[in-house]
Amino acid sequence: MTDFEKQMAFIMELDKIKKITRQTYLSDGSRKENDAEHSWHLALMAFVFADYANEKIDVLKTMKMVLLHDVIEIDAGDTYAYDTEGNKTKRERELKAADRIFGLLPDAQRMEYRGLWDEFEAMETVEAKFANMLDKVQPLLLNNASNGKSWVEHGVRESQVLARNSRTHEGSEELWAYAKSLIEENVKKGRLQP
Amino acid sequence: MTDFEKQMAFIMELDKIKKITRQTYLSDGSRKENDAEHSWHLALMAFVFADYANEKIDVLKTMKMVLLHDVIEIDAGDTYAYDTEGNKTKRERELKAADRIFGLLPDAQRMEYRGLWDEFEAMETVEAKFANMLDKVQPLLLNNASNGKSWVEHGVRESQVLARNSRTHEGSEELWAYAKSLIEENVKKGRLQP
Repeated sequence: MTDFEKQMAFIMELDKIKKITRQTYLSDGSRKENDAEHSWHLALMAFVFADYANEKIDVLKTMKMVLLHDVIEIDAGDTYAYDTEGNKTKRERELKAADRIFGLLPDAQRMEYRGLWDEFEAMETVEAKFANMLDKVQPLLLNNASNGKSWVEHGVRESQVLARNSRTHEGSEELWAYAKSLIEENVKKGRLQP
Repeated sequence: MTDFEKQMAFIMELDKIKKITRQTYLSDGSRKENDAEHSWHLALMAFVFADYANEKIDVLKTMKMVLLHDVIEIDAGDTYAYDTEGNKTKRERELKAADRIFGLLPDAQRMEYRGLWDEFEAMETVEAKFANMLDKVQPLLLNNASNGKSWVEHGVRESQVLARNSRTHEGSEELWAYAKSLIEENVKKGRLQP
């Protein structure tokens, strides 16, 4: 296969992510969103909110990272944040998926994009911290807008949301402060269990 | 409103684009795709295929452009490429939408993003030519993968597709050559009317 054919195979394979459904509802509560929509939203947020990063980020790198961060779910599926059993095998399933999916690409791109995915997962660089912050804050925004629909359905507790967001502030103190205010508001409104 | 509140209003308003349905089917033909999914796919293609641009492009600028290019459809709706009546009023409807939607932002971002949208529409810069090429080639890829489902449904003719793609080569001769081969193949298979 030529490099072009490999790149085209990768682009067509990724079409499948439009069918990976998440637990979060659209802001109007009409249906759950999928991974492609979620990633599109994160990429927008990456440049709209870039100035709120705790440390200056490389915006292009962050956008590539968020656009690619969920492609492994084509094989591994979406594991709901508060699914304890599913989260036990998540890492193993996702590593295998990363090998296969990024393996469709020519070497240089395979290494770059796999590197971005590994970097996102390791959450050590400023870009990875910002990207992970977006990945946590965006569903909070949608949950808040949809009257906590997904939280109510799963009986999610405030402590679970806070535990899941223990490192969100590392990406942006300002966005985290806003997200925290939404969490408190939703506890008051009875959409999150205290 | 603070700048942060304006940015957040913009991000939440854009959630609506997940509900703007296009005429193109997903590659498996199961359902039509929406504008958020389409834009996500274009942003991926922008960096995966960047080296095939006829002239060197600013990848970050191109990605912002494709991520934003369809947000005006929140108000203006998706006008099918081969809808003659709808296309008569398209420009006017879209300009009005651009004023409102980009108007949600703080001044500096409003001017930058509105500028990117105007630039995409004018199709004069290398980034706008590349972004427009992606916007034309991506539905061709999906139409081909879904056995021409949308073309067959609308009885689309080869001449219409070629007319619509008269400037696609300006973005990338290589991607256009590939797209052209797909068009010919689909005429042979009877999915496009000769």
